[in-house]
Amino acid sequence: MELLKRRIREDGQVKGADVLKVDSFLNHQMDIALFVEIGKEFYKRFAHCGVNKILTIEASGIGVACITAQFFHCPVVFAKKSKTSNLDDRLYHAKVVSFTHATVSDVVVSRDYLGPQDNVLILDDFLANGEALRGLLDILRQAGSQVVGAGIVIEKAFQPGGAQLRREGLRVESLARVASMSEEGGVVFAD
Amino acid sequence: MELLKRRIREDGQVKGADVLKVDSFLNHQMDIALFVEIGKEFYKRFAHCGVNKILTIEASGIGVACITAQFFHCPVVFAKKSKTSNLDDRLYHAKVVSFTHATVSDVVVSRDYLGPQDNVLILDDFLANGEALRGLLDILRQAGSQVVGAGIVIEKAFQPGGAQLRREGLRVESLARVASMSEEGGVVFAD
Repeated sequence: MELLKRRIREDGQVKGADVLKVDSFLNHQMDIALFVEIGKEFYKRFAHCGVNKILTIEASGIGVACITAQFFHCPVVFAKKSKTSNLDDRLYHAKVVSFTHATVSDVVVSRDYLGPQDNVLILDDFLANGEALRGLLDILRQAGSQVVGAGIVIEKAFQPGGAQLRREGLRVESLARVASMSEEGGVVFAD
Repeated sequence: MELLKRRIREDGQVKGADVLKVDSFLNHQMDIALFVEIGKEFYKRFAHCGVNKILTIEASGIGVACITAQFFHCPVVFAKKSKTSNLDDRLYHAKVVSFTHATVSDVVVSRDYLGPQDNVLILDDFLANGEALRGLLDILRQAGSQVVGAGIVIEKAFQPGGAQLRREGLRVESLARVASMSEEGGVVFAD
């Protein structure tokens, strides 16, 4: 998506080897006009897939998911990061291992809002090692929902998550795929 | 807002003395068609106030804020709940005291995204004791931004936050004001 790549080139900041700071427009301040274009692009790629629900994870996926849902005319469910590892049987639970932060956290979704009748599009702002996505897929497996695919705003294609998940058969559509980046050279896109 | 009150009556669940569970449409599963109507209503109330930025707090305010921002044609900034009380001088910090959870947490916003040039509408899903709103007001005071007012989806008017903040001069527009509620009697609205 050219508009998005241009924005990343102009306003993204590379920090160290693997941090791409885009909080001026994506995940702290949010440029809603850009989100509308992102939503249209996701719709173009996943229209006619029968999506009846969008699943994302708090907090920074929520904005893109809500704007995009307007095009699909469907509700959004966001998975919550749980502080307490409570074994509440009204919830689906998944563990999300973060290599980056060296933590394991629990994400939860109420059983009331996902089930076998759902045809789900997963949306998130970033894909790197794929931990969050694996957590959401685990929850959808528990729910017996169909997974249409995953829509990602920025994929760090030099980290293994996207390639692995595609090999496993998941349809992953990333609007900008970063092939490599550095503080000096900036961002190089994969396509 | 009649549509919202009807939805609360139909799908809200009162738990104990002061929990109103609306996670089937507001803060876990999100009914985006309803959010669009909520956004239009906020726009009606705050149009012509020169709003150039919307401020909310993660996670459950983000959806309503993003959908509403489309009508104001402005970006959204969301305050982040910080785990670490780090004294990063690139951030505005505020303490949010939660009576409900008996906790004090830190919320932060980057100094890059709020300043004296901003005319800010605060949006949030709930107003009860007003702690989150006070934290956001503190951040806006530090930033030197103008505060247009606060738009709230559901105000628990039997808790003191809204009345206190209005007495202090803040314009608070709540789309549904709950006067009282109980598991047996359901929800009674203030107007």
